[in-house]
Amino acid sequence: MTSAEYSPLARKLLAFVALSEVELAVLKRLHQRRRSFVAGRDMVHQGQSAQAAYVLSSGWVCSYKLQADGSRQIVDFQVPGDFLGLRSVLLRTSDHSFEPIVDIEAVEVLTADLLDAFAQTPRLATAVLWAASRDEAMVVEHLVGVGRRDADARMAHFLLELGSRLALVGVGSRNGFNCPLTQYHLADTLGLSAVHVNRVLRQLREHGLLTFRDGRVTFHDYGGLVDLADFDPAYLDQTGPLLK
Amino acid sequence: MTSAEYSPLARKLLAFVALSEVELAVLKRLHQRRRSFVAGRDMVHQGQSAQAAYVLSSGWVCSYKLQADGSRQIVDFQVPGDFLGLRSVLLRTSDHSFEPIVDIEAVEVLTADLLDAFAQTPRLATAVLWAASRDEAMVVEHLVGVGRRDADARMAHFLLELGSRLALVGVGSRNGFNCPLTQYHLADTLGLSAVHVNRVLRQLREHGLLTFRDGRVTFHDYGGLVDLADFDPAYLDQTGPLLK
Repeated sequence: MTSAEYSPLARKLLAFVALSEVELAVLKRLHQRRRSFVAGRDMVHQGQSAQAAYVLSSGWVCSYKLQADGSRQIVDFQVPGDFLGLRSVLLRTSDHSFEPIVDIEAVEVLTADLLDAFAQTPRLATAVLWAASRDEAMVVEHLVGVGRRDADARMAHFLLELGSRLALVGVGSRNGFNCPLTQYHLADTLGLSAVHVNRVLRQLREHGLLTFRDGRVTFHDYGGLVDLADFDPAYLDQTGPLLK
Repeated sequence: MTSAEYSPLARKLLAFVALSEVELAVLKRLHQRRRSFVAGRDMVHQGQSAQAAYVLSSGWVCSYKLQADGSRQIVDFQVPGDFLGLRSVLLRTSDHSFEPIVDIEAVEVLTADLLDAFAQTPRLATAVLWAASRDEAMVVEHLVGVGRRDADARMAHFLLELGSRLALVGVGSRNGFNCPLTQYHLADTLGLSAVHVNRVLRQLREHGLLTFRDGRVTFHDYGGLVDLADFDPAYLDQTGPLLK
């Protein structure tokens, strides 16, 4: 296979483990149950007992928790190559909901198939553990953002993280990325009001740092954004395979 | 082995996987490098390239991130049976710091030994992936707490979670648990000031819900706390092994 033929998940895992042809074939066999989901309708509900996880092939999904008072905290967004509900498989009930932001394509992965694949290739299990660790590191950054970063730095950090994640699977760069998120998504992610999100984006634009317009985030001053956000991408661990 | 002889990590993993004697023996062999660390001195620094992870045998540790402005966000606390720095092994650099809150005992686990153990017993890899997923689910709850819960519910949720975690490894119950945390730890965890923490704890005590005094959290009205916090422990997944 050439790299263009790899699934986004394979591209992502290859950043951590130099998977062999055999291991890539095991991974490919997990990609048989293709599913489509329409935008705006939950794929997995909070509290649902799920027996399947998904790997996102194309599109964007958000994972969120609703509180009893109806307020929503978006935990993270999933982009191509990301697992959806891997925790739900392992923890039996989903601790949050998943909603496609646009129409998406995903692959359903049954628990039994995943465990079989791990038994065949323990290095694949390690690679998935790496991906889960990276997902957790992102949630940690979101916690630090909401808890400790001011609104400008919080927004800049979040958009830089998304840019790096998308670049890893070939759909983003230091120039920017296509982005279907609304200001309401950003508000529920960052713990800001939609009005505040609007003001922060205007400030970042007026300072020549970035523009978010017409479904595209454009980085005008990548270095300036990194400084503002104190962004250290080490937690995304994209510097080449650790396991040869 | 009888259950009293199991390490806290084995007790925790047994909640998820009915590990065989052989698998327990592999786990036990990981427990050879015993280390002691004194309270208040970082074991792992943010940004450090670590080649070892630890499993906590006794005591409490906090994991935190410092911001450039000196403010601190505590991400989580580790109690016996928890991994410290598992992500640092997989992600190469530690994305946060670990500080013992009291003098602790821990076991050092080398990356190579962990990967060897996974290759020998893929079910152990799955169990560790479960533990990592559970850790992530806790960070998600902390994000929701800081982002969306009011101060009383945030505190109640956090202390109920700690109680459940400690009960799993045999050092807590629905009556309460011994707790070495200060009001400063609680403040840096919950995104509150120490004065606010003090007021919240007084309110919870005056409403007959819980007392935190002299190093002990006592639950007076467990059901009332669960209602206040909208606490659903499903994310801690402690209801018996999924993998037989």
